[in-house]
Amino acid sequence: MSAAEIDGFAERIRSHRGGMISAWVGIPDATLVNHLAQEAFDAVVLDMQHGMWDMPSAANAVGQVRLAGKPALARIPVGDFASASRLLDAGASGIIAPMINSVEDAQALVRTTKYPPAGERSWGPSLALNYTGLSGDDYLKNANALTVAIAMVETRAALDAIDGILGVAGIDGIFVGPSDLSIALSNGDQVAPNAAEIDSAMQHAVSRCRAHGKFACAYAGDGERAGELLKFGFDLVIAGAETTQLRSGARRAINAARRIASA
Amino acid sequence: MSAAEIDGFAERIRSHRGGMISAWVGIPDATLVNHLAQEAFDAVVLDMQHGMWDMPSAANAVGQVRLAGKPALARIPVGDFASASRLLDAGASGIIAPMINSVEDAQALVRTTKYPPAGERSWGPSLALNYTGLSGDDYLKNANALTVAIAMVETRAALDAIDGILGVAGIDGIFVGPSDLSIALSNGDQVAPNAAEIDSAMQHAVSRCRAHGKFACAYAGDGERAGELLKFGFDLVIAGAETTQLRSGARRAINAARRIASA
Amino acid sequence: MSAAEIDGFAERIRSHRGGMISAWVGIPDATLVNHLAQEAFDAVVLDMQHGMWDMPSAANAVGQVRLAGKPALARIPVGDFASASRLLDAGASGIIAPMINSVEDAQALVRTTKYPPAGERSWGPSLALNYTGLSGDDYLKNANALTVAIAMVETRAALDAIDGILGVAGIDGIFVGPSDLSIALSNGDQVAPNAAEIDSAMQHAVSRCRAHGKFACAYAGDGERAGELLKFGFDLVIAGAETTQLRSGARRAINAARRIASA
Amino acid sequence: MSAAEIDGFAERIRSHRGGMISAWVGIPDATLVNHLAQEAFDAVVLDMQHGMWDMPSAANAVGQVRLAGKPALARIPVGDFASASRLLDAGASGIIAPMINSVEDAQALVRTTKYPPAGERSWGPSLALNYTGLSGDDYLKNANALTVAIAMVETRAALDAIDGILGVAGIDGIFVGPSDLSIALSNGDQVAPNAAEIDSAMQHAVSRCRAHGKFACAYAGDGERAGELLKFGFDLVIAGAETTQLRSGARRAINAARRIASA
Amino acid sequence: MSAAEIDGFAERIRSHRGGMISAWVGIPDATLVNHLAQEAFDAVVLDMQHGMWDMPSAANAVGQVRLAGKPALARIPVGDFASASRLLDAGASGIIAPMINSVEDAQALVRTTKYPPAGERSWGPSLALNYTGLSGDDYLKNANALTVAIAMVETRAALDAIDGILGVAGIDGIFVGPSDLSIALSNGDQVAPNAAEIDSAMQHAVSRCRAHGKFACAYAGDGERAGELLKFGFDLVIAGAETTQLRSGARRAINAARRIASA
Amino acid sequence: MSAAEIDGFAERIRSHRGGMISAWVGIPDATLVNHLAQEAFDAVVLDMQHGMWDMPSAANAVGQVRLAGKPALARIPVGDFASASRLLDAGASGIIAPMINSVEDAQALVRTTKYPPAGERSWGPSLALNYTGLSGDDYLKNANALTVAIAMVETRAALDAIDGILGVAGIDGIFVGPSDLSIALSNGDQVAPNAAEIDSAMQHAVSRCRAHGKFACAYAGDGERAGELLKFGFDLVIAGAETTQLRSGARRAINAARRIASA
Ligand SMILES: [Mg+2]
Ligand SMILES: [Mg+2]
Ligand SMILES: [Mg+2]
Ligand SMILES: [Mg+2]
Ligand SMILES: [Mg+2]
Ligand SMILES: [Mg+2]
Repeated sequence: MSAAEIDGFAERIRSHRGGMISAWVGIPDATLVNHLAQEAFDAVVLDMQHGMWDMPSAANAVGQVRLAGKPALARIPVGDFASASRLLDAGASGIIAPMINSVEDAQALVRTTKYPPAGERSWGPSLALNYTGLSGDDYLKNANALTVAIAMVETRAALDAIDGILGVAGIDGIFVGPSDLSIALSNGDQVAPNAAEIDSAMQHAVSRCRAHGKFACAYAGDGERAGELLKFGFDLVIAGAETTQLRSGARRAINAARRIASA
Repeated sequence: MSAAEIDGFAERIRSHRGGMISAWVGIPDATLVNHLAQEAFDAVVLDMQHGMWDMPSAANAVGQVRLAGKPALARIPVGDFASASRLLDAGASGIIAPMINSVEDAQALVRTTKYPPAGERSWGPSLALNYTGLSGDDYLKNANALTVAIAMVETRAALDAIDGILGVAGIDGIFVGPSDLSIALSNGDQVAPNAAEIDSAMQHAVSRCRAHGKFACAYAGDGERAGELLKFGFDLVIAGAETTQLRSGARRAINAARRIASA
Repeated sequence: MSAAEIDGFAERIRSHRGGMISAWVGIPDATLVNHLAQEAFDAVVLDMQHGMWDMPSAANAVGQVRLAGKPALARIPVGDFASASRLLDAGASGIIAPMINSVEDAQALVRTTKYPPAGERSWGPSLALNYTGLSGDDYLKNANALTVAIAMVETRAALDAIDGILGVAGIDGIFVGPSDLSIALSNGDQVAPNAAEIDSAMQHAVSRCRAHGKFACAYAGDGERAGELLKFGFDLVIAGAETTQLRSGARRAINAARRIASA
Repeated sequence: MSAAEIDGFAERIRSHRGGMISAWVGIPDATLVNHLAQEAFDAVVLDMQHGMWDMPSAANAVGQVRLAGKPALARIPVGDFASASRLLDAGASGIIAPMINSVEDAQALVRTTKYPPAGERSWGPSLALNYTGLSGDDYLKNANALTVAIAMVETRAALDAIDGILGVAGIDGIFVGPSDLSIALSNGDQVAPNAAEIDSAMQHAVSRCRAHGKFACAYAGDGERAGELLKFGFDLVIAGAETTQLRSGARRAINAARRIASA
Repeated sequence: MSAAEIDGFAERIRSHRGGMISAWVGIPDATLVNHLAQEAFDAVVLDMQHGMWDMPSAANAVGQVRLAGKPALARIPVGDFASASRLLDAGASGIIAPMINSVEDAQALVRTTKYPPAGERSWGPSLALNYTGLSGDDYLKNANALTVAIAMVETRAALDAIDGILGVAGIDGIFVGPSDLSIALSNGDQVAPNAAEIDSAMQHAVSRCRAHGKFACAYAGDGERAGELLKFGFDLVIAGAETTQLRSGARRAINAARRIASA
Repeated sequence: MSAAEIDGFAERIRSHRGGMISAWVGIPDATLVNHLAQEAFDAVVLDMQHGMWDMPSAANAVGQVRLAGKPALARIPVGDFASASRLLDAGASGIIAPMINSVEDAQALVRTTKYPPAGERSWGPSLALNYTGLSGDDYLKNANALTVAIAMVETRAALDAIDGILGVAGIDGIFVGPSDLSIALSNGDQVAPNAAEIDSAMQHAVSRCRAHGKFACAYAGDGERAGELLKFGFDLVIAGAETTQLRSGARRAINAARRIASA
């Protein structure tokens, strides 16, 4: 896939064609990401909130995702907006910010991910210029469109503020975190991302996104759940983290070996 | 699993109870290894020949394997025997040396992996002392028994020399590399690790190991093939590399999502 | 020590049996930590405020501390609460947050280190699940109890607010930083962590902790001072940083060599 | 250059002798920095805002700059004041903080870079003690003078607040970021750091610094522009980033080769 | 540039169209390599003999070179043939082996860089499969053609054996190291890579390559010398290391600034 | 200490003034090395044979040792002579090669550590030029004198060949490894570096060095033994590894704390 196709991701996800599936990686190794990106994913998310990426390894991983012809997104740690612009400088196609619980949180995200006048992203797109092949002037004009700012909705407060958050100019879409949402809605009683109550919240989120003309993403713990979320109308879903996929692949291999060996 | 159980690996594999399955990892990240080691593997091999481990990352990974209650083995680069003893110092339970094509090659492996009088392994078991909990004197007395030296048989020359190799004192077992063997036996014509010709070579290898009272290991590209190799009598087999398992897990998740989404 | 014993640290320190001594490490190397943890420490603190750890190296070090059968704590940089939850995800048994000068600061610490309803810690305990051996549900139920949130008291403002800070639900204990405290109390005039004025402040801190049923920790620059602090009633003390211990060990070795050589 | 001369940087730049040129490095490699520091630069800035440094690599780079006999400065990510004090602990001679747009921002910078009573920098100057050769007491007394806190002025708000920012005790000087300033002043229309409008703003900034008895620094994209800025009276200027210098050096070598080959 | 074009490098250099200029990098940072590869180089060499690359960083750098649309070559440490095949597995388009002084040395190089029957390269092209997009079977069939094995001629012995070396099947070309050659020819008296004596040796080397139908490469310390070597008929030349280019670019920027400032 | 003083180490150790004590570090962290080098050591050895250094971390550590005003030596892995020249390029003042058991081994060491005509060290002293401040020509002329090649004598074979080894031009001195020697002399029965038999071998080694006009070094496990070895006439001794010193310092601190707390 050419750079133009990779950088077309933002337009594709904003067009609500839907049906996108992204990989999700917390293990901080750039070559692992290249292997995973060979599969039929539409994008790869580098998780810096619960994964162990640091900036140099994440920057290398963005390169390896692009080398595989795919766009890279990054989830930043809670409130670490300074990392958001560094990751865009490193060529990421979008930022997923966790725990965006209010209009103010959403504005803070926009501030560091969008150039003026939309935000106050600071100038310094070193690798992004190399990768996109754009001149500085063209990058400035187009970067706000070529990259996406995605607000995570995963608390009661965020659900309450969802219209406000979606109404913030520069927020391109939302990403529902069902595990945290289930913990929040149960007051810490259970982590139940697939519960009926979460289904309703998710469908509500999709419909609010539609109303605002913005896109909706969500995390699913496995492929089956990811399929259900796509049916809810999400534009992009996760189908399990890389460790889940690794372990399920390993478990199946072990089981096959044991079954055949004892046949 | 306690340190004693981890360090009992060498005795277990030498006892020919068979049926062991090991993970195989080339991605140089220690935390990935911990996740993988949660599955029902009997050991984890760090592949430094075709994988990208360096010494500090491999040392950390040995620790993460042990923390998961499993023994770690390491495959060294071709002829890099100096790394063999460093990995044992770092707590590895065994060394797999590629391209051991002659008695001389086998002796070189023993020289760096076994203390005198069996070999000339140099003293310096820093982390290994911490992990095993042994005093220096006890480690010296027991290290040759607690760790295994495994010679890869993967060329025509190695097959021809297999009895000589197995006859070298200090060689604990062999590891058949069927991909390289198939390339060798076909004079570079094909990589066909599951071909009938390879089956024969493998069964021959198992029977020569039995004759010498030594153990036999082999690489299989997936779980099904691993099961077949266990039926051949191998003591320990690989059931695919971590990248294969990761990608198969990811592929299944994507497929499940697509199937359900379009149902 | 088993995982259960390691994870029993939080209960032990809350039980006020006292007398605990922890290592303190700023050098960002996981294997160093394993060596140090062989000594009779009750815990190891990874110092990310004045030490040079990044997230991947700290995650590996937590593993190496646990492999040595000990709990790992981490001191985060000032205000970097996002790192607090990442370190708990990586298996740390507690977080020490510097410069907690007010009730609001203490609440911010609780927010990222305790799951709802106590706080808003986000879900993603990847390595922590592996290490504790708990299911997701059990981890959610028990994590707030199994890990500790520790507020550093090291300014005039913090001393003034100490009852408020200790009154914040979710704050498990405090950690007195006598160097910063001595600088603060002297208005920048001296770094005198062992001054009489500091002794009083420390004894006051211990007594306020007792009143609130919470535990008290403190930093001592060497073993002698650590002993005094234990006599003050602190539950856990530091007996010098690793660089101090390394250099004192080296100095003694050099001196012994010179003395004997010139005898 | 001796440690005393390196640590004399703060006094030199405060003395308004002017004419200083610093290197600027975003590539996170400490040995690259040593090579670059062989050239006739007066200082080296490690850029953590748009460059990819993490803390361990930056700490090593500070050492390599000092080994080349030069002072190292570090630009921190937006709002990441916790890193400011870590870098000073690691031996940096000054901190450049981006996007200081108000008196409150300037006070936050001072708080983490100056010891009491000027600020609240926390005690822990591990490597800085080694490098300066000072005792703890002497370091405490002198650190505020030996290191500089530099506020970036690069938005409309910052220009408006420039006298307030310069009036904050502990702010040693300012650093004008002309690219961001040009984007801000054009409402996102252009990145034109050398425009006439920017010239005026820069000359204004220099004159306000003079009025407050503080020093002025600025970024120039190449040597020619750096020369112009020195004529404006800036005390220290950048003459292009290391990637610009690397690429210009490479381009010239390629062109020379092509020209001679085709002669 | 597409993968096919990148992987067409081997064919291009074997076709004797000449005039190729490659970058040369010893600083072990993958992102630096991407910046440098934006300039009009035909390839990038990662120098592991005198540079400080380790395997993981080199593997990432190969990816960054390819992402810039260029082929990556790697110079291995003296005699470290095991690294040669690891680098090819990581996607390098060729290996430059230093100090190939005899037919035996050349055969050792071929042994690890070419699959049977030409050599004994071991199977495991993980990243290379991803990057080339070839199946395993196709990679096996084509890898010997798609990658090049280059023998360094840089001693008296090598010059004497040049026809023998060039006669080894699998050696694709040679690379003349004029600094070492000048030291060798002067018996350690001088490092004079541009001396007349070296010119003769170089022209002789080119003519012997032509006679054997193989290509010739050489190191030049700067662009001017590179141009001269291209006129000698070399197929690919270096125009200075990255540190030389970086420092020359920096020096010019400083000089320009000083000149204008004092105008 | 200035560069000239650091680079005077080779002359100092060759002058047989004796009494030198070096640090010894296997933990691969450059900042740890700087802390240790603050103590009264004459040099620091980076142990790559049993320690976990890789090339980039060792290169950074050499810089940190020099920044502390001391010379850095490196012990290479067994037979890894390619690393020897890379470490000299990185500024190391000497190479200690383990398991030099014959004249041929000694010649191999000289070949990669000395420029022609003494050896065949390849040209590429990147950082070494920066650190020494020498021009290329001056470095070529002086490097063989400014750096030392040290052969480890630690086997029966080496003892037998000691005069031959010492007779190899370019071998500057030997380093006795008493642990390996005790294992060798006891045929693997015990690691007893302080046994009487080892004393004799060591005194013999010193006397053979004196006869050949070369210097003698040795490893001692602690300061007391180091003092005894200095009395034997060794020119440079080790007084325990850094992990021994770290743990002894930690143990003393713990013991002091416990003693005082229970007083
Ligand atoms: Mg969440
Ligand atoms: Mg193989
Ligand atoms: Mg403090
Ligand atoms: Mg800016
Ligand atoms: Mg050469
Ligand atoms: Mg030894």
